[in-house]
Amino acid sequence: MAIDYIAKNEERFLEELKELLRIPSVSTDTEHKKDVHACADWLVAHFKKIGMPTVELHQTPGHPIIYAESLGAPGKPTYLIYGHYDVQPPDPLELWDTPPFEPTVRDGKLFARGATDDKGQMFAHVKALEAHLANGGLPVNVKVVIEGEEEVGSVNLDNWVEANSERLKCDAVFISDSSMYAKGLPAIMYSLRGLAYFEIEITGPSHDLHSGLYGGAVPNPINELGKIIAALQNPDGTVAVPGFYDRVRALEQVERDGFAALPFKESEFMAETGVKGVQGEEGYTTLERTWARPTLDFNGIIGGFTGEGAKTVLPSKARAKFSCRLVPDQEPGEIQEMVAAHIRSIASPNVKVDVHFHHGGRPVITERDHPAVLAAMRALKKSWNTDPVFIRGGGSIPVVATFSDVLKVPSVLIGLGLNDDRLHSPNEKFDLENFYAGIRTLTYLWDELA
Amino acid sequence: MAIDYIAKNEERFLEELKELLRIPSVSTDTEHKKDVHACADWLVAHFKKIGMPTVELHQTPGHPIIYAESLGAPGKPTYLIYGHYDVQPPDPLELWDTPPFEPTVRDGKLFARGATDDKGQMFAHVKALEAHLANGGLPVNVKVVIEGEEEVGSVNLDNWVEANSERLKCDAVFISDSSMYAKGLPAIMYSLRGLAYFEIEITGPSHDLHSGLYGGAVPNPINELGKIIAALQNPDGTVAVPGFYDRVRALEQVERDGFAALPFKESEFMAETGVKGVQGEEGYTTLERTWARPTLDFNGIIGGFTGEGAKTVLPSKARAKFSCRLVPDQEPGEIQEMVAAHIRSIASPNVKVDVHFHHGGRPVITERDHPAVLAAMRALKKSWNTDPVFIRGGGSIPVVATFSDVLKVPSVLIGLGLNDDRLHSPNEKFDLENFYAGIRTLTYLWDELA
Repeated sequence: MAIDYIAKNEERFLEELKELLRIPSVSTDTEHKKDVHACADWLVAHFKKIGMPTVELHQTPGHPIIYAESLGAPGKPTYLIYGHYDVQPPDPLELWDTPPFEPTVRDGKLFARGATDDKGQMFAHVKALEAHLANGGLPVNVKVVIEGEEEVGSVNLDNWVEANSERLKCDAVFISDSSMYAKGLPAIMYSLRGLAYFEIEITGPSHDLHSGLYGGAVPNPINELGKIIAALQNPDGTVAVPGFYDRVRALEQVERDGFAALPFKESEFMAETGVKGVQGEEGYTTLERTWARPTLDFNGIIGGFTGEGAKTVLPSKARAKFSCRLVPDQEPGEIQEMVAAHIRSIASPNVKVDVHFHHGGRPVITERDHPAVLAAMRALKKSWNTDPVFIRGGGSIPVVATFSDVLKVPSVLIGLGLNDDRLHSPNEKFDLENFYAGIRTLTYLWDELA
Repeated sequence: MAIDYIAKNEERFLEELKELLRIPSVSTDTEHKKDVHACADWLVAHFKKIGMPTVELHQTPGHPIIYAESLGAPGKPTYLIYGHYDVQPPDPLELWDTPPFEPTVRDGKLFARGATDDKGQMFAHVKALEAHLANGGLPVNVKVVIEGEEEVGSVNLDNWVEANSERLKCDAVFISDSSMYAKGLPAIMYSLRGLAYFEIEITGPSHDLHSGLYGGAVPNPINELGKIIAALQNPDGTVAVPGFYDRVRALEQVERDGFAALPFKESEFMAETGVKGVQGEEGYTTLERTWARPTLDFNGIIGGFTGEGAKTVLPSKARAKFSCRLVPDQEPGEIQEMVAAHIRSIASPNVKVDVHFHHGGRPVITERDHPAVLAAMRALKKSWNTDPVFIRGGGSIPVVATFSDVLKVPSVLIGLGLNDDRLHSPNEKFDLENFYAGIRTLTYLWDELA
């Protein structure tokens, strides 16, 4: 049986993962271009070795995409696995206890750059495929996309997915590139927030003026920008843009009950962020505020004299960047219009206001009763012997929006990492318990989906 | 007679001023230190040459101060003349039509760095003293202070004035380091605004956070700073700090009538500043707003990500600088307390708010019926054959506050320049008509004061 095969091969699986982690596939660094390509080649060879019927290396203007498929289950549904083989730079090197590209096991944890993000999690999928291929074959149709540019913004993936959308057709996407809710508590992330990112520039006088000679009679762009910032927020913590909440899907009571039951400590959240107190939309908990409610946060601001000391300038310009996190079913394009219109309606007629839209991304939600979600829940429970929980994510994962927009299919995020895995930091690690339980989960998954 | 002496010596006066202007006494540039000292020596020699009984060079940690006095009118009042012999750097050199330190007359105007600011205006005082000294002596007691650090903030003047306050005792100070209201329209500036300069820093989380993972539940320092900026302003254009206006001396009707009668064009003000429209405190004109009403203007702001493009950061900190222009009888120390208290009362308890006070300066006002003012008005009328006007200044002249605070005497500002003199810019000039009329004015002045 596939599941027994795992226990028998744990040691080899670990050695193979170590081999994969030794390749310094740092996608952000052109000096590592050869290594990134070597890593892709290694994976192509490995997919062939485990018996995937079709394995292809697709060149892009950047790093290659690996595509594999096993379509030997006619009449059965088809699923897509997404992962990435590139990693973050290991700097600062001196903070690593053992070298980042010399994978080392200590205390049941595997330390290496990419251990959890995403080589370890992605490789758990590969090993689950092998467990089936070596034991009678996959009970469903599986397509695999592993890219090498996730850490540089997946710059070539969207075009590639659009160009290959027919071939990538599937019923759902599975991604393991995130975390469980806590150690021993597996989770399905079924929703992510979207984004609408803005930049605003206010021009008062055409050039910097002396605040003594002109102050009092000339519109000051920072004073005016402050008024706009304030006018975008209500005292109750909501966003003060007319229409902003029109499409917001209310949290269902079952979701709120589920979040409330999670082991979440406000004191830990405060210690982690270093804030004196939490604040946000009235009537919602911290988890609800960060996972399931829209926001408007300023990301940067600059204007006038910002050096040491004092300069009595009445500046010509002030600029700020801000972004809204969006939740289902808000539309970035609509939000863009509403925000810009609101700003124009409150700005002084005596200043020039430019509102620029940087980019946006739709929020995504996968119905919790989707067959792929239910199958993943059963597989997690079998593997971990505990009820998995439903969670949402406050950030965006662009590839999920891509699959949603282009392939029109939901993604199911089965995070195998832990919140203390230090991804992007020195001493990144992956718990071996999570690695093996992850392989078992993903092996059960294909049976549950069949 | 002193006044006839001027007409006979106009040509020589101009040649002497050119000699003074040829010395590149750029106080901001250490490479010009020798020139600055040479300029001081030239003036010492010149004061001796015109017959000032006492002439002294006072060394300071920076550039020397020249002190001269003529106390030969016992029982008569004593007046102080202030001026400065240092100049701004001439850069950018390529924009000058003739070299900045090669004074050149074109169209009745003398072009050179320092022509109007302040060598030309200061030298008009020197020549008026000479006109009296060569024709029977000065009818009042006169003390003269010419410093060499005005363009670097008069960094050593305050200490020197305090150390010599007994010796500097006088009934009023005369300063010519500003402009007439317009060509052919002489003016006395009888009031200047003061200053209170602040810096504010808001800290939300202890470090930058990901706006997706934390946005909605964490106080954002830029959002909070925006609320504070807005809460410092009322919709009617007033400053929203409780108590801010308590000590503001209301404009008298005669002042308002005087300002309203001045040839002021809002369209020219708008063209000059490049604003789409003027705005400010309701119920006041542009001149009243910039001359005689207090303000709160932000001078600079910075926080979070300010580079190109978009970064979804929820920043830890945001900082801003702002300053209030004060009018009689506001006290910078009181304003400082009020503003800080108001900010603390409106800031979210979940952020850390630091309010830092940079510096302040008292507003000054000289009564319009002060004998020194009335004498200056008569002298101006005699010289220009037109009624001079009363004006105020929106900026601060720190030395005026120093004389007010330390010597407890008013200053009378008799500007001889024009608004288009391009001080601090290439092609600085001084109208020769103003130079000669200025010498006549200051020559009449001593008679009027006697």
